[in-house]
Amino acid sequence: MIQSKEHLLVIDADSRSSGWLVEHFAAQGFEVTAAATPESCAEMPANQRPDVIIGDLMPEGVAWLTDFLEPFEPRPPVVVLTNPISTDHILETLRAGAADVVSKVALDITALDEALARQLERVRLFKQSKRYRQDLERTVSEFKYNLDELRADQRAGRQVQMKMLPEKGLRFGKISIDHCIKPSLYLSGDFFDYYHIDQHRVGFYFADVSGHGASSAFVTVLLKNLSNRLQRNIRRQSSDDILHPERLLARVNSELLETDLGKHLTMFAGIIDTEKRMLTYSVGAHYPMPVFCDGKDCSFLEGRGAPVGLMAQAHYKTFERPLPPGFSIIIVSDGLFEVLDAPSLDAKEALMLERVRSSGHTIGELESVFQLDALSEIPDDIAIVSITETLV
Amino acid sequence: MIQSKEHLLVIDADSRSSGWLVEHFAAQGFEVTAAATPESCAEMPANQRPDVIIGDLMPEGVAWLTDFLEPFEPRPPVVVLTNPISTDHILETLRAGAADVVSKVALDITALDEALARQLERVRLFKQSKRYRQDLERTVSEFKYNLDELRADQRAGRQVQMKMLPEKGLRFGKISIDHCIKPSLYLSGDFFDYYHIDQHRVGFYFADVSGHGASSAFVTVLLKNLSNRLQRNIRRQSSDDILHPERLLARVNSELLETDLGKHLTMFAGIIDTEKRMLTYSVGAHYPMPVFCDGKDCSFLEGRGAPVGLMAQAHYKTFERPLPPGFSIIIVSDGLFEVLDAPSLDAKEALMLERVRSSGHTIGELESVFQLDALSEIPDDIAIVSITETLV
Repeated sequence: MIQSKEHLLVIDADSRSSGWLVEHFAAQGFEVTAAATPESCAEMPANQRPDVIIGDLMPEGVAWLTDFLEPFEPRPPVVVLTNPISTDHILETLRAGAADVVSKVALDITALDEALARQLERVRLFKQSKRYRQDLERTVSEFKYNLDELRADQRAGRQVQMKMLPEKGLRFGKISIDHCIKPSLYLSGDFFDYYHIDQHRVGFYFADVSGHGASSAFVTVLLKNLSNRLQRNIRRQSSDDILHPERLLARVNSELLETDLGKHLTMFAGIIDTEKRMLTYSVGAHYPMPVFCDGKDCSFLEGRGAPVGLMAQAHYKTFERPLPPGFSIIIVSDGLFEVLDAPSLDAKEALMLERVRSSGHTIGELESVFQLDALSEIPDDIAIVSITETLV
Repeated sequence: MIQSKEHLLVIDADSRSSGWLVEHFAAQGFEVTAAATPESCAEMPANQRPDVIIGDLMPEGVAWLTDFLEPFEPRPPVVVLTNPISTDHILETLRAGAADVVSKVALDITALDEALARQLERVRLFKQSKRYRQDLERTVSEFKYNLDELRADQRAGRQVQMKMLPEKGLRFGKISIDHCIKPSLYLSGDFFDYYHIDQHRVGFYFADVSGHGASSAFVTVLLKNLSNRLQRNIRRQSSDDILHPERLLARVNSELLETDLGKHLTMFAGIIDTEKRMLTYSVGAHYPMPVFCDGKDCSFLEGRGAPVGLMAQAHYKTFERPLPPGFSIIIVSDGLFEVLDAPSLDAKEALMLERVRSSGHTIGELESVFQLDALSEIPDDIAIVSITETLV
């Protein structure tokens, strides 16, 4: 940065004394302007405003300058060089707004230079702080621009992702399925879908992609696309993979490995058959396991299986659970465990069961019992799917 | 915000005068502390530092205070209340660092209050500016945290996306295919792939998803997955859609509509058959059309077709172009046109042809002739794929 010279204004009606002062300060490297009267300040262009004024001034002149300089930022301090005729004269000069007073009689150059140095120090501090403030303001507006741009991008991504989720509060006969999803950032690596298969069967899956944000959200697009294709295939009677949770997991596993995104996921997939009164499901390392409530008690479903998209040779088993009337199934992502206040995973599981037992199983009731609305920060994506059968 | 009281320190060895001053300022709402000597300042806790000091002080006392207060920020100004025995005495007091001097003899209360007001105004401005600066600093660090978080997220997404692109500089016999991609943000809506089909056939496609950033990048995952599946199908001999560019476009069209992301794209897909010496291609509203160079001249390929993912009833035609020895095909996204300096689309097309004619057709040469490295801002994603046949 080119530091422009500091600018002094010398006001002195005596041209000899004025000339001497100009020379003295110019020799020190200052840019010096001379004026005969304070009023000539008024004609000075804004970009030539002095940093400090040194003047042989009477109190009235000082008062005029003080008024005139009032709106300036920074306000140039006025050092008065005067013949101190009396103590009252000096006090009056100070009261008029002089920043300092130095005797012009038998002029002590050191005293004058020191007075100037004291005022310049203040002016420099002010300017420095102003420059720093302006730098900060520039940084804030630049960061804000970049943030707005990235946030708009993520919001657009989020809208697309939300479009892929099933409708909230769907009913399939007596079965109600509902969900909530709280991404840690804008985009989520948690994903789920549920769909009508035929008059007595409903399919659903729940996946939690490793990581979170944009890179994980990519994988959810694949999931949606694959489950769409499998649903289409059964309508066209070209494949019934969608009826077999273990095949759905195997398909996701192989397509994920083939697309080679470097991402894997945990998954739970199930089919509810209201005619056979049976839940058939398959587990791809999903944790925590879904909670199953039979109308009397709630417990975690049994079963295990490998993560999806890690190993080509992964095989998935099918598990079954008979469906008592009025059953419910609560599936959550492990993001929920990160906000459950318990010291260990076992304790978190116990706490989750306790909360689910103590509450109704609509999404609203679950959000409330897990206090999801009170979360100020969400370390990992949180999603809940609730499947309930009404008795009436 | 609770504005704490401003704090004055009164230094006066005369307890009657000190008591009177304390009472006077306390009545105005200030918090006032009294001390008998300047040195007692040294024992004052940091959080009880005065905003302004008013003291009956000799020049030596002022000088001591000036030294002592030097490191304070802000430095409390010292208003000296004194018996002005001589003009020299006042000037000496000022030289010692007093901010103002008021006569204690026949004390003019208004003069004292005015002197205090002048100093307080400076102190308040300083504090206000410091608070503002601190607010700015907090905002900067908060914005930086959020930016870092979002950027890390986008970078992770970008890594996944880059993994989906084909290797740079692939060779299929005498055919070399290479590319470059410059996203406007981190994630790109431009996507392409090229792949070996059999000994004499190479397939490729180039797509530009509407919009840019995360939401558009989602769609590129679908494209990659679909083309992977079609390549797998031909290996398994279950479908030869991948050999027919018009079927590839139709498949993308229907899957995009089915997945219902609210996104469409423009696309160009082709098959190079080096045995039949024929390029077969299909166009999904891709613009600008690829440039075809036959070793003598370069021109845009002919053909048109509907955007992909907008209309269920879209049908795509096949076009053919014989392949002379040493041909090349340059495919770009319309993001390139946004940085070509020409007044109309026609002029941009002419400029593009001119540049391609004037240059070699490796990616390095094309990046250089289009000055892609010199771009300071990229309004829309830019991608170039270059397919060239070597003669030797």
